Amino acid sequence: MHILIVNGPNLNLLGTREPEIYGNLTFEDYLKKLSADFDGQIDYLQTNIEGEIIDALHASKHDGIILNAGGYTHTSVAIRDCIAGIGVAVVEVHISNLAKREEFRHNSLITAVCAGSIMGFGLEGYRLALTWFANSSRAKIGY
Amino acid sequence: MHILIVNGPNLNLLGTREPEIYGNLTFEDYLKKLSADFDGQIDYLQTNIEGEIIDALHASKHDGIILNAGGYTHTSVAIRDCIAGIGVAVVEVHISNLAKREEFRHNSLITAVCAGSIMGFGLEGYRLALTWFANSSRAKIGY
Amino acid sequence: MHILIVNGPNLNLLGTREPEIYGNLTFEDYLKKLSADFDGQIDYLQTNIEGEIIDALHASKHDGIILNAGGYTHTSVAIRDCIAGIGVAVVEVHISNLAKREEFRHNSLITAVCAGSIMGFGLEGYRLALTWFANSSRAKIGY
Amino acid sequence: MHILIVNGPNLNLLGTREPEIYGNLTFEDYLKKLSADFDGQIDYLQTNIEGEIIDALHASKHDGIILNAGGYTHTSVAIRDCIAGIGVAVVEVHISNLAKREEFRHNSLITAVCAGSIMGFGLEGYRLALTWFANSSRAKIGY
Amino acid sequence: MHILIVNGPNLNLLGTREPEIYGNLTFEDYLKKLSADFDGQIDYLQTNIEGEIIDALHASKHDGIILNAGGYTHTSVAIRDCIAGIGVAVVEVHISNLAKREEFRHNSLITAVCAGSIMGFGLEGYRLALTWFANSSRAKIGY
Amino acid sequence: MHILIVNGPNLNLLGTREPEIYGNLTFEDYLKKLSADFDGQIDYLQTNIEGEIIDALHASKHDGIILNAGGYTHTSVAIRDCIAGIGVAVVEVHISNLAKREEFRHNSLITAVCAGSIMGFGLEGYRLALTWFANSSRAKIGY
Amino acid sequence: MHILIVNGPNLNLLGTREPEIYGNLTFEDYLKKLSADFDGQIDYLQTNIEGEIIDALHASKHDGIILNAGGYTHTSVAIRDCIAGIGVAVVEVHISNLAKREEFRHNSLITAVCAGSIMGFGLEGYRLALTWFANSSRAKIGY
Amino acid sequence: MHILIVNGPNLNLLGTREPEIYGNLTFEDYLKKLSADFDGQIDYLQTNIEGEIIDALHASKHDGIILNAGGYTHTSVAIRDCIAGIGVAVVEVHISNLAKREEFRHNSLITAVCAGSIMGFGLEGYRLALTWFANSSRAKIGY
Amino acid sequence: MHILIVNGPNLNLLGTREPEIYGNLTFEDYLKKLSADFDGQIDYLQTNIEGEIIDALHASKHDGIILNAGGYTHTSVAIRDCIAGIGVAVVEVHISNLAKREEFRHNSLITAVCAGSIMGFGLEGYRLALTWFANSSRAKIGY
Amino acid sequence: MHILIVNGPNLNLLGTREPEIYGNLTFEDYLKKLSADFDGQIDYLQTNIEGEIIDALHASKHDGIILNAGGYTHTSVAIRDCIAGIGVAVVEVHISNLAKREEFRHNSLITAVCAGSIMGFGLEGYRLALTWFANSSRAKIGY
Amino acid sequence: MHILIVNGPNLNLLGTREPEIYGNLTFEDYLKKLSADFDGQIDYLQTNIEGEIIDALHASKHDGIILNAGGYTHTSVAIRDCIAGIGVAVVEVHISNLAKREEFRHNSLITAVCAGSIMGFGLEGYRLALTWFANSSRAKIGY
Amino acid sequence: MHILIVNGPNLNLLGTREPEIYGNLTFEDYLKKLSADFDGQIDYLQTNIEGEIIDALHASKHDGIILNAGGYTHTSVAIRDCIAGIGVAVVEVHISNLAKREEFRHNSLITAVCAGSIMGFGLEGYRLALTWFANSSRAKIGY
Repeated sequence: MHILIVNGPNLNLLGTREPEIYGNLTFEDYLKKLSADFDGQIDYLQTNIEGEIIDALHASKHDGIILNAGGYTHTSVAIRDCIAGIGVAVVEVHISNLAKREEFRHNSLITAVCAGSIMGFGLEGYRLALTWFANSSRAKIGY
Repeated sequence: MHILIVNGPNLNLLGTREPEIYGNLTFEDYLKKLSADFDGQIDYLQTNIEGEIIDALHASKHDGIILNAGGYTHTSVAIRDCIAGIGVAVVEVHISNLAKREEFRHNSLITAVCAGSIMGFGLEGYRLALTWFANSSRAKIGY
Repeated sequence: MHILIVNGPNLNLLGTREPEIYGNLTFEDYLKKLSADFDGQIDYLQTNIEGEIIDALHASKHDGIILNAGGYTHTSVAIRDCIAGIGVAVVEVHISNLAKREEFRHNSLITAVCAGSIMGFGLEGYRLALTWFANSSRAKIGY
Repeated sequence: MHILIVNGPNLNLLGTREPEIYGNLTFEDYLKKLSADFDGQIDYLQTNIEGEIIDALHASKHDGIILNAGGYTHTSVAIRDCIAGIGVAVVEVHISNLAKREEFRHNSLITAVCAGSIMGFGLEGYRLALTWFANSSRAKIGY
Repeated sequence: MHILIVNGPNLNLLGTREPEIYGNLTFEDYLKKLSADFDGQIDYLQTNIEGEIIDALHASKHDGIILNAGGYTHTSVAIRDCIAGIGVAVVEVHISNLAKREEFRHNSLITAVCAGSIMGFGLEGYRLALTWFANSSRAKIGY
Repeated sequence: MHILIVNGPNLNLLGTREPEIYGNLTFEDYLKKLSADFDGQIDYLQTNIEGEIIDALHASKHDGIILNAGGYTHTSVAIRDCIAGIGVAVVEVHISNLAKREEFRHNSLITAVCAGSIMGFGLEGYRLALTWFANSSRAKIGY
Repeated sequence: MHILIVNGPNLNLLGTREPEIYGNLTFEDYLKKLSADFDGQIDYLQTNIEGEIIDALHASKHDGIILNAGGYTHTSVAIRDCIAGIGVAVVEVHISNLAKREEFRHNSLITAVCAGSIMGFGLEGYRLALTWFANSSRAKIGY
Repeated sequence: MHILIVNGPNLNLLGTREPEIYGNLTFEDYLKKLSADFDGQIDYLQTNIEGEIIDALHASKHDGIILNAGGYTHTSVAIRDCIAGIGVAVVEVHISNLAKREEFRHNSLITAVCAGSIMGFGLEGYRLALTWFANSSRAKIGY
Repeated sequence: MHILIVNGPNLNLLGTREPEIYGNLTFEDYLKKLSADFDGQIDYLQTNIEGEIIDALHASKHDGIILNAGGYTHTSVAIRDCIAGIGVAVVEVHISNLAKREEFRHNSLITAVCAGSIMGFGLEGYRLALTWFANSSRAKIGY
Repeated sequence: MHILIVNGPNLNLLGTREPEIYGNLTFEDYLKKLSADFDGQIDYLQTNIEGEIIDALHASKHDGIILNAGGYTHTSVAIRDCIAGIGVAVVEVHISNLAKREEFRHNSLITAVCAGSIMGFGLEGYRLALTWFANSSRAKIGY
Repeated sequence: MHILIVNGPNLNLLGTREPEIYGNLTFEDYLKKLSADFDGQIDYLQTNIEGEIIDALHASKHDGIILNAGGYTHTSVAIRDCIAGIGVAVVEVHISNLAKREEFRHNSLITAVCAGSIMGFGLEGYRLALTWFANSSRAKIGY
Repeated sequence: MHILIVNGPNLNLLGTREPEIYGNLTFEDYLKKLSADFDGQIDYLQTNIEGEIIDALHASKHDGIILNAGGYTHTSVAIRDCIAGIGVAVVEVHISNLAKREEFRHNSLITAVCAGSIMGFGLEGYRLALTWFANSSRAKIGY
């Protein structure tokens, strides 16, 4: 199983700013742990540029994509169209619980075209998404 | 580890109506599988009455609660207040991807007072929530 | 033919309050007249508890249900989901013309999942609904 | 008893378009059946012109009017003013269940000035309205 | 003089949760003090179930009702209809100042059908409502 | 104990207009009764000018202020800022139940910066506010 | 001076319906008085059909037009475009004070393209408009 | 006949600013002409202070008031309450056609409590209001 | 190929008003040029009456219809229903770019039931629509 | 004549995804046909990056630009500013009829700064835009 | 150069309340420093009365005005009209960053008629405004 | 002192387009003057690509950043998150007064996370921001 994780704008700051809140674990460090526990291969991309997220999703031939689109979650019709148009299932992940934050973060343009959405579990949200892809034959039972 | 799963209105119909879509697995059947895979104890309640959900959450002394509040998700300030007032962490689960459904299902009054939220993965969403509780010491690393 | 009539919150007050406006006919009295004119059997339930309406509809094996959900008409996603999920046709009835009343009564969450809706004809609205069920083979002609 | 039925724009297409959905019964055919079952006289008008509906209602000296205003239901303040100004009771009828259709059809400017409203029962809705006028001495009991 | 106090959902938690904020006085303890100072009889009900509040108000033959409907304040058309339909005056009380809290708590569906409304004075709000009922012959002077 | 009562625009008309509704008790007459029953001193100001309300609150060194801001309740950010900036607790009083009146009276800009709010009890609302200040050491118990 | 008065839908009912409110003066009777007092010629048209108002305004070569568009005031972009496109000044008149009536009557699509607007003065509003046209050389002083 | 004209904020600038647009006629100059043509007495007040408008209306014992509230038209609930509470009829006048200006000028809080409203006719609007008061016995015919 | 062009309200003014802006080419003149360049037959109707547009579309047996509904574009549910109900493809044309004009012109009720929409190209928009019908076998390639 | 066609995000997927709907014609293939029929030169750019669309428009010295901004149509104030600031006329094209799709696609931020807009004609929309540029001397006649 | 600084409601509290946050520098103290650094004359007015701000601006013959309208910023159409009508340039200053505060402070009615706006820099905002007036011949270069 | 100025989309057009309005001073020219007057170092970046603004801010180790985000001001949650996450103070500058422009430019997503905001002063706004950074030890006095 081959999974792509895409992190959008500002997620490169994880682990390097405000360590008293977020700890000093960078996403790259976390990714090593995740890969060690996962029976498959994980590709990873972080970019601050909206169009490069779209390019990456177009090019993907993975079994699944885990996407944290950061601030573009709330404004990008283009990423929504991209997810709807490609043939690979995408799971939306957010580290924080967006419903606890500012009003303009409560609406996601992306959720409706994703397979599912997970938020509020910190970095472990990525693991849950990975778990679902790993179990996906069984996951389909419940639909 | 001791977890409570609460299902709200109409979720008793799972597996008995529209089997060509949902399969003929009832939640009770699914719960048996879930319990077999889980290293701990699961209590389960289904009720159509809003106040009984509140009663159950008040009485709970579990390590965590998984709540699918069904239609009350969108209308119940009372359940929101209940979750905010008790000392047990609650994870919100929805079987379907609410963002793909009617406009009035897009807003959840409950998300902001839950630890996290999972939707769109069918019955497997309950398993992901359970996984997170099981891993919760590790989960906290990423916040 | 076997029909269930369900009246929601506050409809137990009919005929006992403000008789100069509503007359002193209780719904139970009216029901006797209705039953006498109807070639079939009518079951009747009044409850102020939202979840008990749902329980009754789940349990129903009638040929049709006539529902006046009272104040829950405007707030209950749970009753909407219930009607959509059961296999029995439901006709929505309101005694008063809701469009003549406060703004928050103008929107019904329930209409879209009912077979049809009747309002403004006083208690006779129940008779019209009953008439439609009785004539239902002919009714289908016009769709 | 003397009743006027007024059908607004596009209702002349009934029975001539999309027969696989609506059958090939025209409203004129249906009207014959309705008249045969009714102990009184029915006058009928169909027009696509908003002002001609108003002219007809102004001129009416009937015991009651059944109005399906079609698309003008949602936009015509002028028809609303007309119904409010004349001395004859009007019952609003719609063939389909408007709550199941596009958002802009959910609001009727006319309901609040009508005696009552019936929708979703196909052509049989006209019969229910007729029944109510026929029973109207009894109907008033329930208000 | 005979007064009914009704507390809605989650108000059973008073005094048992977050004592550093709310003190460890339960409502039952406070009620004893209130009763001792009051020249009349107080009945008390707490319930988390919306329909049971309605049942209690329907059954009431008191000289006045003090209602803290908790989270149902903002969502219950059914309780509003109930208050409007019974013959006993209801005073709305809230412990906290709702205007200082979340947006969705700023609108009360109930205020418009109550005699008056008191909020932000902590448990003493109940005492003020009681004072008003006790003085009600004098109170009417000012209208 | 030393309390300031401030009445805003149009409240000088009390008792002199529409006596069949409001009685012919002026606020000054009522104030005499209130003072007679109160164990402390009451200062009183009525003004139609928004800025003079602000001036009075800035100058106040009272133990508490009772404010009925009249029409400025709904429009004055300046009075809101004033209340938030001074060191004296303010209780908002309205003679009528604003929720029963026009839509634009339902929102108060002032409530959120007051200690509490009382409305719908006629002139007796001022007495309730006074009672609360008098009992304020006890009042704090319930928070 | 040559003036055209155009009355839109339902204004033909004036004087024939609800005489206890409106008197039994028809517009035609009133027009005779108006003409007698006016030093010029008045043409008059009443129609219920939106497009005929437009036709009349297109054809007009008068010195001024007084328009009461009735219910079309709130919905007709077509009449607005018509007024904006012709070379004759139009004064909008309404018999009642629209601001005292239903919400949907508060917005006029037409006012912004008229010279001025007069409402709430009963039939005398037409006389005021006429007065302005008669004085129009003087009227321009004040702009 | 004794009439009061009240001009609100900024109307003191008329005739002294932008003479190429407004001419160099001040309101005081215009008032002289108006008075010369009027068979009665006119009192006049201009003030920039909201509360002074209220004070003037409270003190008025005139046969009628003509009010141009300037910018307070759109924001003053206090002036609205004042007009509703006094016993003298008020006519609202605006020099410009507010519907041609910014969105926030389209709503008047005052119109609904005035006898009628006139706008867009420049200074001549005051003359039309005066004419109506002068003719008011006849004016009542048309209601 | 046989095409119908329908122009709605006020479009008869083209070429006769404001020639310095629109030129002095009437639509009839333009139509001659269009017909000369087109290999087929064009029928043409202009009407200010909403219902006559509907009648014309109902009666049409053309290969395509080009419709400029003028002001009815933004208000006519009836024309929308008409287009949706007939079997002939309709192309919407507007001479000006509606997005550059007033807010209330930004929404078209008609676009969603047309094959396509063209605006902002002046009279040449009709030619583009005609071109598309002429090429329609090829046009289908790109869908 | 020298024209630039710019396609925004996801339009590179044309012809390679969902061929049963869109056919297997890529935009590049279609462009060849378009160029063959066009008496001039066409430059072409596809990019998923918002800022690169802006860069391309800034650099353009063409006689006209045809822009399909894809998902950026609804969200990009930056592209709007770009079109408004450059000296080359831009025509907006959309392959599908946006009014038939999700609510959030109904508003275009770009239309108001373009010369005109064409949508719903599939790939042929590009040809219509090209036709208009080719005829632009004649096109200007109709404004 | 002669500048007027006007501070609106509640700004007289600066330096006397909450010194741990705002310091104990009053505006008068700060003004002395500002004047010492400024090559010109500064007049200063603070008032809590909306109309007095208007009076001051009408009377001003300064080279520029710096206005902090406090709470009137969000509600005063009258001050907006005043700024638009006088001939002196006004710069809007706010001490705090309004965008960080309550929703109702995010909209300023005044900004659109000022030369420019500065907020969030504490008392130094006044100095920046002063700097701009001092440099205004140079400032114009950049427009 | 080391300052970074970042200009967003379309600001590269300054001085090269519409010179009769903006002059023919490019930002680069203006920057030279600014640098000459400033006692420190200024770095400068202009880019049309949203993600490159974010990259630049992430990489910045300056004493302060001056940001004119152009059209991204109103749409970019990603830039907002970026500013909130980095450790360098950002001042928002806009050349024009956004409140005088289209409705969609009135809301800035960025202001709330900046130190302060300056708009409407043309290019001199950059100088004011620079002045504030230069004086920042003194600036803090006023908070």
